[in-house]
Amino acid sequence: MNFLTLPFFLLGISTVHAFQYTELAQYVDSHQEEYVEALRDWVAIESDSSNVLKRADLHLMMEKVAQKLRLMGGNVELVDIGEQELPDGQMLALPKVVTAQFGNDSSKHTVCVYGHVDVQPAKKEDGWATDPYNLTDINGKLYGRGASDNKAPVLAWIHAVEAYQALSLELPVNVKFVIEGMEETGSNGLDAMILAQRDTFFSDVDYIIISDCGWLSIRPALTYGTRGNCYFFAEVQGPKQDLHSGVYGGTVIEPMIDLIGILDTLISPSGKILVPGIRDAVAPLSDEEWRMYQDIEFDIDHYKNKIGASQLMYSNKGSNNHVDVLAHMWRYPTVSIHGIEGAFSDPGTKTVIPAKVTAKFSIRQVPNMDPAMVKKQVTDYLHSVFAKRKSPNSLKVTMVIGAKPWLADTQHPLYEAGKAAVKRVFDMDPDLIREGGTIPIARTFQDVMGKSIIMMPIGGFDDGLHSQNEKMNRYNYIEGTKLFIAYLNEVSQIRKTTV
Amino acid sequence: MNFLTLPFFLLGISTVHAFQYTELAQYVDSHQEEYVEALRDWVAIESDSSNVLKRADLHLMMEKVAQKLRLMGGNVELVDIGEQELPDGQMLALPKVVTAQFGNDSSKHTVCVYGHVDVQPAKKEDGWATDPYNLTDINGKLYGRGASDNKAPVLAWIHAVEAYQALSLELPVNVKFVIEGMEETGSNGLDAMILAQRDTFFSDVDYIIISDCGWLSIRPALTYGTRGNCYFFAEVQGPKQDLHSGVYGGTVIEPMIDLIGILDTLISPSGKILVPGIRDAVAPLSDEEWRMYQDIEFDIDHYKNKIGASQLMYSNKGSNNHVDVLAHMWRYPTVSIHGIEGAFSDPGTKTVIPAKVTAKFSIRQVPNMDPAMVKKQVTDYLHSVFAKRKSPNSLKVTMVIGAKPWLADTQHPLYEAGKAAVKRVFDMDPDLIREGGTIPIARTFQDVMGKSIIMMPIGGFDDGLHSQNEKMNRYNYIEGTKLFIAYLNEVSQIRKTTV
Repeated sequence: MNFLTLPFFLLGISTVHAFQYTELAQYVDSHQEEYVEALRDWVAIESDSSNVLKRADLHLMMEKVAQKLRLMGGNVELVDIGEQELPDGQMLALPKVVTAQFGNDSSKHTVCVYGHVDVQPAKKEDGWATDPYNLTDINGKLYGRGASDNKAPVLAWIHAVEAYQALSLELPVNVKFVIEGMEETGSNGLDAMILAQRDTFFSDVDYIIISDCGWLSIRPALTYGTRGNCYFFAEVQGPKQDLHSGVYGGTVIEPMIDLIGILDTLISPSGKILVPGIRDAVAPLSDEEWRMYQDIEFDIDHYKNKIGASQLMYSNKGSNNHVDVLAHMWRYPTVSIHGIEGAFSDPGTKTVIPAKVTAKFSIRQVPNMDPAMVKKQVTDYLHSVFAKRKSPNSLKVTMVIGAKPWLADTQHPLYEAGKAAVKRVFDMDPDLIREGGTIPIARTFQDVMGKSIIMMPIGGFDDGLHSQNEKMNRYNYIEGTKLFIAYLNEVSQIRKTTV
Repeated sequence: MNFLTLPFFLLGISTVHAFQYTELAQYVDSHQEEYVEALRDWVAIESDSSNVLKRADLHLMMEKVAQKLRLMGGNVELVDIGEQELPDGQMLALPKVVTAQFGNDSSKHTVCVYGHVDVQPAKKEDGWATDPYNLTDINGKLYGRGASDNKAPVLAWIHAVEAYQALSLELPVNVKFVIEGMEETGSNGLDAMILAQRDTFFSDVDYIIISDCGWLSIRPALTYGTRGNCYFFAEVQGPKQDLHSGVYGGTVIEPMIDLIGILDTLISPSGKILVPGIRDAVAPLSDEEWRMYQDIEFDIDHYKNKIGASQLMYSNKGSNNHVDVLAHMWRYPTVSIHGIEGAFSDPGTKTVIPAKVTAKFSIRQVPNMDPAMVKKQVTDYLHSVFAKRKSPNSLKVTMVIGAKPWLADTQHPLYEAGKAAVKRVFDMDPDLIREGGTIPIARTFQDVMGKSIIMMPIGGFDDGLHSQNEKMNRYNYIEGTKLFIAYLNEVSQIRKTTV
């Protein structure tokens, strides 16, 4: 910051330029077909980060992002973040991380938009009604893998910057991008890259904006919390090798039966976590939270229809009680059992006694749980349950992910700016919501980098992330672009002194 | 049978030709390198019937068997048994069944040797010390997939016939072969083919010989029983599609947790089957059986070492009590849980709530269990356990295999002939053993065709069927060939009147 510009900041920057929102919004409306084409172009690339055979597509995807940002005049870099080791020991190059910078005016705030352009796996045979890699517009719903998670939101941010440029309007804040390609498989290499650039690329960043989640209903939302996640492997090892179940069945204590026995002690049929101590650490639901949840528009019947469940875990107190459902979605822990590695998982029949089986399960983390403590509680508990079986097999419990929950202050200027932007674009107040999933990078930005973060979703509540028939509403995509335009202006209004 | 030959049978055929065992055995010894080469040639073909991509190899394998038998002057047919339907609806040609006939003398008994030349899957990476499709002789152990199960035994039968031919000796009985290529995946199409040829190829068959199992120790054995198998699918269906466990975890009653809950009620940690009624049908262990088992040479410590288990399920009464172990291996039922389809089974982490999960488990059948009754007992029980969970998910239980156990009379002339042949070749009495696994075709031959069957194994007790590092001992292969030569002669001694 140089001395001459100082007085402006103390007054706030808003007085300098009138915000031409109407013109910008009109520009967006008149370019929506181009935006859809841009999304089609990105969705066509099968940038599945979990499939090593698609790594070339993923590299191409990162190049495409970089190229787009370069053409807009950004200061763009493709940052090499090294290699990953595959289970067979082979090394595979990670997709580079794209960083970009628009504007370098030290008198302005600098925001950094985080996003990702890798996707979850998808195959037509999984039950898609359309080709997942051919964006298909059906009644304003744009179907395609990665459309909502997270390609359209990333593009919407790019379109927001483009709109300012197209109308020759100065960006109200400096805008940086950090776009990665490994989010769906754990953001491999990103933490290290962020740390390495703490004093360079990130040194002048004031705020982090993440748009990698969705609304709760048709009402726009700001997200102020995510659950963390402790992901466990429980491995039971028995015989030296797989055995024929006819020849050996009845003489061998089967690892699979031991494993099922201990998994069955994690959670009750009604959803109560049975691991001692886990629930003690959970912050009680305050009256204020209860009231906030009560005010949120949430249609339980619609939610049930959407997922195809006739009954939810915590909606037994009456169909109108959505507070329990929201609380268990956002701010209570839960156990999910994802699957078992090493057992027979193909179609058909196989008469095998698997020698080594590894269960994958996770416990979602909420304030004030501590992953280190959860690791000990789960490990001790499973070993004690296992010991009671008096099995000759061996048990190994490891926690492979320990991501803390994240929670923001909804009164923070970043959120006040968000509320104002929503008000301007949608003429209503946003829902203040939390997210049941985990965005580990938020904790890195907050804890390690000391940055303030806002999560500003534009995806619809029924976009089907990670599922078949993922889609992005054209409405959300276009209005979302306007929201980002408006938000950049609102952020510029934040007094530097309040940071 | 014509009238003139009748008196010979009433006297027994043994008086007609002196049996030149010594010459035949010498011939075998002097040709053992050729036999090993023949096995190497067969093992080199990856005739994996479970892998549709290897179907061409499997067809080639059947051709090779047919060609071998043709060159020996057999009356050979490659019987078309139709197609199989793959899970995706595609049709795939089944490998043809080879039938062959040597000798057509109605004054002689006719035996039919059943065998198979398809194999279980095997990859070097699974933990093989050698290439599974390159037969490797290490200290007289011939390592290779399918070496023991069932290529060497089939070849040994062929070599037995060849030896008679080479020495210009008349075969003491007519010998037929029925060699299939789908045994490892359920003998698809074989039952129908056998029924269709009941009054043609099989009409004059007196005895069925199966050599598709192994000894129990270094002592030769005759097998007089196999367990049956009831194989179940238990499918729990919940949401319409897979869900993100972060976003939905805590609101949804997860199918995987329901499934684990019901699987955990099948069998106790110590191996007690918990399904009501199952154990009631089991024939009690008679004093005679107990004595038979007691007399069998069985080294529990060796067995434990072989499978890598520090403790067995039923050996708690002292390390010398092998009766319990044998009984639970052969003549008591057991539950094996093979795996779960539809859940996450890959390496790594995935945060999914699987929407539909299907457990695969089986209950080995013994006299006097009835698969139809077991089906009802298991289905009713699992539904009652599931109902107690008050889950909104749905459960479907299906029994996809219901194979009865098989038991022969060890005093039958076929077994007496077997004992005599073992005595001649090995100069000892065979162990009379049972087999924990299931050979469903035995029931078809016995129940549907009304044929008497003997199971005459030549494989070693530690051959590693279905596992890594499968092998056939050179000793078993060569002495097994001699055993079959001797057995053909012994069978010819059976009085037709005793059949």
